[in-house]
Amino acid sequence: MQAGKPILYSYFRSSCSWRVRIALALKGIDYETVPINLIKDGGQQFSKDFQALNPMKQVPALKIDGITIYQSLAIIEYLEETRPTPQLLPQDPKKRASVRMISDLIAGGIQPLQNLSVLKQVGEEIQLTWAQNAITSGFNALEQILQSTAGIYCVGDEVTMADLCLVPQVANAERFKVDLTPYPTISSINKRLLVLEAFQVSHPCRQPDTPTELRA
Amino acid sequence: MQAGKPILYSYFRSSCSWRVRIALALKGIDYETVPINLIKDGGQQFSKDFQALNPMKQVPALKIDGITIYQSLAIIEYLEETRPTPQLLPQDPKKRASVRMISDLIAGGIQPLQNLSVLKQVGEEIQLTWAQNAITSGFNALEQILQSTAGIYCVGDEVTMADLCLVPQVANAERFKVDLTPYPTISSINKRLLVLEAFQVSHPCRQPDTPTELRA
Repeated sequence: MQAGKPILYSYFRSSCSWRVRIALALKGIDYETVPINLIKDGGQQFSKDFQALNPMKQVPALKIDGITIYQSLAIIEYLEETRPTPQLLPQDPKKRASVRMISDLIAGGIQPLQNLSVLKQVGEEIQLTWAQNAITSGFNALEQILQSTAGIYCVGDEVTMADLCLVPQVANAERFKVDLTPYPTISSINKRLLVLEAFQVSHPCRQPDTPTELRA
Repeated sequence: MQAGKPILYSYFRSSCSWRVRIALALKGIDYETVPINLIKDGGQQFSKDFQALNPMKQVPALKIDGITIYQSLAIIEYLEETRPTPQLLPQDPKKRASVRMISDLIAGGIQPLQNLSVLKQVGEEIQLTWAQNAITSGFNALEQILQSTAGIYCVGDEVTMADLCLVPQVANAERFKVDLTPYPTISSINKRLLVLEAFQVSHPCRQPDTPTELRA
């Protein structure tokens, strides 16, 4: 069943794909990328081949250990259980709860409301305002939560799954021109994370499918 | 820090609250309910007191072991880690990944798109169609996924976190008049779960805040 390197189906700009790329980088897991362009050909995620792989027609999906996993947090939890070093969840159940709370807040409470398919549905005139509202209402809550959980990073002083969700969401906020000045804690944690190697190599501007004009 | 019984902030009809009520019932955890009416007084979740408890202004929230946890899956994972019997996640990491995949698909990919606050934003004329689209596109994927994961329940023959997400989502589907005939696997798993005691006592029609006319 073991079929060589894990394969990540990814789109350079997808914030959910970026979460998984950071996890793979932190854990030092070598993998191949199969780019799925969410815009080209009307969206390659809608192809028959990809649907057979992930019926939700979304990236990321990870082929690993003979199975295919989708949903970014499910992938990260699987990697954590099978490749536990370095830990992305603390030992203490209460701290683990904080990490999952923040991760779910972003992955379930913000990102789904501002992803490509929802923005298409709400229509071009209001999509920027819609995305901004989704992000600011989530960030208002998150900024307050971080007051009691954060150390150097989102929960304490070690990088956790919560940080893997934070950085890609801040990048989305910047793309949607959200004013980040009301979120000094989010912003400073984001800055501290962005300089780490795992966040750099996984960055949307450095992927195999990043268009030349967006490379850095 | 231990302050007696856990307190669940819940709304009888909230599908996310129901998930947690099932977990508490299955694990035999005695708790008190504090009803948060999402409609009355313009939404009691927006009160200052509740916001201090959960900055996301959403139910459920659970006060337990001296901490407050919100986000339903984070709550369930905490209960699983601190009160492991009966298990809501299988032992095998690959099966755990299936459980989390299905849970995240519902909790992150369906429910957030058809919750009260989003439906308010999309406006009265299209909210029924909007909710139906969110549910059918998720259920199309889920029905396919269950072909390879399901036994008696969503993943194998034991009740897991995935089932705690499935039943409340099917109830939402029924409320939004989604035709369930294309989903025979979802429907039959739902039926098998609904007769279990933990799903019955936690049912929206049997909560302290269920209005008399909806009681059963």
